[in-house]
Amino acid sequence: MITGKALDELRNAIGAIHVRTDEAVEALDPGWHPDNLKAGVLVAPESTAEVAAVLTICRAYGIGVVTHGGRTGLVGGAISAPGEIVLSTVRLNRIVDLDPVARVAVVEAGVTLEALQQAAQIHRLDPGIDIPSRGSATIGGMVSTNAGGIMAFRNGVMRHRVLGLEAVLADGSIYSDLTRVVKTTAGYDLKHLFIGAEGTLGIVTRVALNLDVTPPATVTAFFGLPSIAAVLDVIRMALDSPAGSLRAAEALWQSFFHLTATTQGFADASVDAGMPLYLLLTLGGADEGAMRDAFEQMFERAIERYPNMSGIVATSARQERDLWRLREDTDAIYRAFPAAPSYDVSVPLSGIDAYVTRALDGLRCLDPAFCPFVFGHLADGNLHIVLNHAGPLRPDRTRAVEAILYQDLAGFGGSFSAEHGIGAKRVEALRTYGDPTKRALMRLVRDAIDPSAILSRNKVIVRP
Amino acid sequence: MITGKALDELRNAIGAIHVRTDEAVEALDPGWHPDNLKAGVLVAPESTAEVAAVLTICRAYGIGVVTHGGRTGLVGGAISAPGEIVLSTVRLNRIVDLDPVARVAVVEAGVTLEALQQAAQIHRLDPGIDIPSRGSATIGGMVSTNAGGIMAFRNGVMRHRVLGLEAVLADGSIYSDLTRVVKTTAGYDLKHLFIGAEGTLGIVTRVALNLDVTPPATVTAFFGLPSIAAVLDVIRMALDSPAGSLRAAEALWQSFFHLTATTQGFADASVDAGMPLYLLLTLGGADEGAMRDAFEQMFERAIERYPNMSGIVATSARQERDLWRLREDTDAIYRAFPAAPSYDVSVPLSGIDAYVTRALDGLRCLDPAFCPFVFGHLADGNLHIVLNHAGPLRPDRTRAVEAILYQDLAGFGGSFSAEHGIGAKRVEALRTYGDPTKRALMRLVRDAIDPSAILSRNKVIVRP
Repeated sequence: MITGKALDELRNAIGAIHVRTDEAVEALDPGWHPDNLKAGVLVAPESTAEVAAVLTICRAYGIGVVTHGGRTGLVGGAISAPGEIVLSTVRLNRIVDLDPVARVAVVEAGVTLEALQQAAQIHRLDPGIDIPSRGSATIGGMVSTNAGGIMAFRNGVMRHRVLGLEAVLADGSIYSDLTRVVKTTAGYDLKHLFIGAEGTLGIVTRVALNLDVTPPATVTAFFGLPSIAAVLDVIRMALDSPAGSLRAAEALWQSFFHLTATTQGFADASVDAGMPLYLLLTLGGADEGAMRDAFEQMFERAIERYPNMSGIVATSARQERDLWRLREDTDAIYRAFPAAPSYDVSVPLSGIDAYVTRALDGLRCLDPAFCPFVFGHLADGNLHIVLNHAGPLRPDRTRAVEAILYQDLAGFGGSFSAEHGIGAKRVEALRTYGDPTKRALMRLVRDAIDPSAILSRNKVIVRP
Repeated sequence: MITGKALDELRNAIGAIHVRTDEAVEALDPGWHPDNLKAGVLVAPESTAEVAAVLTICRAYGIGVVTHGGRTGLVGGAISAPGEIVLSTVRLNRIVDLDPVARVAVVEAGVTLEALQQAAQIHRLDPGIDIPSRGSATIGGMVSTNAGGIMAFRNGVMRHRVLGLEAVLADGSIYSDLTRVVKTTAGYDLKHLFIGAEGTLGIVTRVALNLDVTPPATVTAFFGLPSIAAVLDVIRMALDSPAGSLRAAEALWQSFFHLTATTQGFADASVDAGMPLYLLLTLGGADEGAMRDAFEQMFERAIERYPNMSGIVATSARQERDLWRLREDTDAIYRAFPAAPSYDVSVPLSGIDAYVTRALDGLRCLDPAFCPFVFGHLADGNLHIVLNHAGPLRPDRTRAVEAILYQDLAGFGGSFSAEHGIGAKRVEALRTYGDPTKRALMRLVRDAIDPSAILSRNKVIVRP
């Protein structure tokens, strides 16, 4: 347990009211996972220097540290345990600079994605990454988990948006690389170690991000399609569109569409509810009319090939929002099946058809009652698969499901964790499905950078 | 020196004719730096297993290894010394797979950029990165140096194009991560350690690369402009163009333009030779006529603000090529000033004007005869500065020039090495201008991954 002496030092370092214990912690929202605040102690430093002071104290006392951003992570990366402290970035919430000429933002780790989007929008700029939890997810958390989301097929994932970052290491030293340019070859680009390390190698305190020019207009269409091949075909048409550039290509398998359509009260005679797959496409560009025409032409070309397809093009911002809700209301699953087991895989586009067929067949063989909800980012091959099952599976069942979904995935270039990370939840999967040489290197790097083993000890790879 | 026994083992491992020594090495083209083949021994394995066998032997005998791709690097990363061996990837030249549906290529390290571009073009796809040395530069070399080039402002640098890679470590073990998807959060993304490590952490043997859809048409324009502010203003207009997407924005300062225009015999009455800056813009899109119109409109809008500007829009593929030669014939400098000292910096766009003014003033103060050639990638802030001086400078002069060009660059978010790397040439600059915490971490990582210190010993950071 954390001694009174250690707590006193923490209070001295960052101010007593910013070190919460007991009831003051219990009063907080734990976020996605109920165990996120189990540590019972939460510190909220307000500067990089204060983060460094906290880590120096924790290292001296051997106290484990778990960093919290928006607590929206889905793999338990924020889970903490008694004897550890939670370090929250909630007070690191300043937009340090927003340079419209260089198209760069420098923000503290606790700034939410939505706050940055709003600040950039004033200059017709955009962080180029978007996830449904934008209102809570922080930039620091998105960097630490290498967030993906909707525009990754086009703009890359968080790693590709970060120009520079500052992080505090376990010994309290500060890795400072707030580069604001995309081109740098000035030695190993070690920022990429901190990106996606889920707080196990350092605590990200500031980030310099690339901003993109926002298109003046967007148009969204929604198609019902007979097959994955048809979906990929229509996505390629959209990628080739002369009227705008594709900003999103989200697919909903039938059961997920039925669930959210029911929840949202969606009904449109032009959308046939009997199609196996639905595709949400958004184009961005200068000419709204031209993009609408492009969708109409796409529809005409596609219906020649897939005569039973159906579709609509949104004609108002409100209709566009309603269509997006069909995709983003993933909570509908968890309301129906609390704590439903969920999986998050990446599959090369050419293998998705075979993968989904094999996966769904395999799950049905395991349990005829399994009829998973499937949806995802079909332009980059990232599928979310959520079982229609309340609560966690038994451990042997979990292993059997993972074997179905993860076996051979790496062999053809996929990933068993696309955008959610490893956290606490996928530690066993990494051990089973991760490459042994890679894991050995991960250990080497982690031991070298955090020899005291205070940072998120039980995450990613459990440390002895 | 390398013993006969070690050479015999190398011959046994990969075949005697693939271990060249003495005259057989002297007969080869050393590439950009005359010392590249100083080792006098060159091995050319043809598979990952053979690379592993070579490294196992080298480690056993303590032989240093320098990896060669196309030998086009400009900072001496390929320099070798007697007692070392050169490992050439020339026989690792297969395009392993080109998947047009997933839009992914998997290639061996020795494949040239041009060979990949041609293979992808058949499917209207493109690696999304381009550099003038495309005919010789290899994908492995471009990964190891994190190549940048013309399209980086849009598509990122090589690091952002790589989906997965395979590398052989100094102990002969194989890091195998041929992921073919953009989203992966399955543990630390250690491929980023090998990208840009210039062969000091492992030898890249295979790479999975993201491919982009090639636009059906391109149109190129060339403007003479009065100031950097005007150049940035016109680039922003081009980024906002509704007719196509910007694929290149290359700037030529006057003295460089005069040099290549003279060399190429370029003369066009519509281009005023007295402008301080010239800007080459290429749009890519579906409708050639619309892009041409967009350039004409851009010109009309710009000339209202900058009445003395001038410009042309290329009307044929040949004219487009001729305009590009003005930018790409950088050899013209080295023909006039052999081994001219060159610098490669990145500056945030909002700071370029002040930076260039300060740098040119500083150089003139140091030596009134200095009138450097300046050109570069103006949409990402990467400037190339080459002195009008034959041969290297005296060491004190080099330090003085670097002080002018590099001082404070990191402070406002730039980089003293944008796309050329550290190699042998910038080791001292990294020591002087690199962040000490970062250098300490680099050492930690390098010692952990290559404890035997056989890989490119004297590159990036000199090892004891």
